Amino acid sequence: MNIDMIRAAADRAAGHVRRTPLLNSPFLDDVAGRRVWIKAEALQHTGSFKYRGAWSAISALTDPGGIIASSSGNHAQAIARVAHLHGREAVIIMPDDAPKMKVDNTRALGAEVVFYDRMAGVDRDKMAEDMARDRNLHLIKPFDHPQVIAGQGTTGLEIADQARAEGITKGQVLVCCGGGGLTSGIALALEAEAPNFRVHPVEPEKFDDVARSLKSGQIETNAQTGGGICDAIVTPAPGQLTFPHLHRLCGPGFVIPEDDCLRAMAHAFSRLKLVLEPGGAIALAAALFHGDQIEGDDVICVASGGNVDADMFAHALKVYAQ
Amino acid sequence: MNIDMIRAAADRAAGHVRRTPLLNSPFLDDVAGRRVWIKAEALQHTGSFKYRGAWSAISALTDPGGIIASSSGNHAQAIARVAHLHGREAVIIMPDDAPKMKVDNTRALGAEVVFYDRMAGVDRDKMAEDMARDRNLHLIKPFDHPQVIAGQGTTGLEIADQARAEGITKGQVLVCCGGGGLTSGIALALEAEAPNFRVHPVEPEKFDDVARSLKSGQIETNAQTGGGICDAIVTPAPGQLTFPHLHRLCGPGFVIPEDDCLRAMAHAFSRLKLVLEPGGAIALAAALFHGDQIEGDDVICVASGGNVDADMFAHALKVYAQ
Repeated sequence: MNIDMIRAAADRAAGHVRRTPLLNSPFLDDVAGRRVWIKAEALQHTGSFKYRGAWSAISALTDPGGIIASSSGNHAQAIARVAHLHGREAVIIMPDDAPKMKVDNTRALGAEVVFYDRMAGVDRDKMAEDMARDRNLHLIKPFDHPQVIAGQGTTGLEIADQARAEGITKGQVLVCCGGGGLTSGIALALEAEAPNFRVHPVEPEKFDDVARSLKSGQIETNAQTGGGICDAIVTPAPGQLTFPHLHRLCGPGFVIPEDDCLRAMAHAFSRLKLVLEPGGAIALAAALFHGDQIEGDDVICVASGGNVDADMFAHALKVYAQ
Repeated sequence: MNIDMIRAAADRAAGHVRRTPLLNSPFLDDVAGRRVWIKAEALQHTGSFKYRGAWSAISALTDPGGIIASSSGNHAQAIARVAHLHGREAVIIMPDDAPKMKVDNTRALGAEVVFYDRMAGVDRDKMAEDMARDRNLHLIKPFDHPQVIAGQGTTGLEIADQARAEGITKGQVLVCCGGGGLTSGIALALEAEAPNFRVHPVEPEKFDDVARSLKSGQIETNAQTGGGICDAIVTPAPGQLTFPHLHRLCGPGFVIPEDDCLRAMAHAFSRLKLVLEPGGAIALAAALFHGDQIEGDDVICVASGGNVDADMFAHALKVYAQ
């Protein structure tokens, strides 16, 4: 992993991946007590930054053949769409209790969905590797894949460029963090392009594996491996490929209560006209409601959308909209 | 009014007014049966295209002095914010039954709010003119003002540019339409920059003054002057300045049931991660649900945000979200 791979991913993405806007609002600045900037990855194709990694990985392939991925969420839909646009078959492995909306969306984007029995103790990763070999498919993991990290890193190139245009010369960059693909990619991009910015992963309570790993200096795991409203960013542990970059470049990590994500969703609705999912709103939640942990005048938050449940969104508005 | 004024407005806006993205989604294309492009003005500062007109009008002033405007909605907040950024006082005249959220937002953006008794038959326009004279303020009307039309027209310059980048060489442009400032501005811009695009105003049922005026060739008025969920785009009649341009360049107008705006809001939520208000969703509603009235392979819809009532948004999701 290096900056040249990220720049090459940006070249391959030109005209295909959206350059998302960097938004702000005086109302959010007032809540946060400093200037808050939102990198609106919810506006990316398929609603999340995962499209960047999918585009990067698939556009880098030199051999023919279809794609296989294991995901019930945003990575699945990004892979489905990008594979389709490249004229490649896509096979997505999902748990048999995945939400119907996510299954339907993934199929509508052109992928074949293969279910596994989550309760039967199936090793999903082994199943993906076996199927990749048997059906001659390229396996693209959601974060521990060099070209996926490079693709997510293009977000960082844009942040550096947009911060410069806004006259922001230094600051903190808060990133919604699961396995660390987006966080490490952005950190690598900013190390090269805007070294006065410090990257912090943001995670929900009970799933703070990255924050704890950064503290201890080695890969720590979560006791729970699923559940919660921030499911889009819940992973068992930081990746083998991502952790060395996270450790060298990022931190400390911030750990945020779930309810603050719903509050941040309501603020994004009112002030930015942006739909975020809980996990995608967590960096904004940290900036708005946990500013005492943050230094400096400017904070940049990556915000992502995904498949937001309409009932949960309505609940967030009911409780928190102003 | 001419294209040079729009280009000059764009020059004054550079670095201050957002260049909003042109979004799309394969899901929306499927619903519409053609390619649908959404010019996301909901992402403009203060949540609506009104910011463009406000920036254009205030940045064009050569004399000192504050601003006065009469509006209970998006024009009010745009004027409040832009006046504040120019170091000018802003006075906004609102009906005394304006929603608290809109009053609060306008004040929070730095304006003084002056109420009038809407039931007492006060002539709001005369009140604004009297106050402008007495307090030596610049009156900026919401649509019948050359520099406001020029500012809204910058949306059209961006559409021409973004359509070119997407390889769209001709098509229909649907615009949410009240008094016609945005519609006429976009039509003037496209006449010069992309003459293969035809502009159509879109209005809600019962408030179809522009559609009827285009048919009859003269300014027609609405029987009702208020009410309905599309309040952001309800005006008594097209403007004296806007109508000649609308008549020369636009039409036919499309007239859409209110409920389809709520459906379009739910689609924008799911597929674009964008929050629209009913009046701001009406062009998308026409493209998605009334495609039989539209010709060609590509339709571009202007979509705006404003101050969306959270309860109404939750209702739209409950009824129409997928």
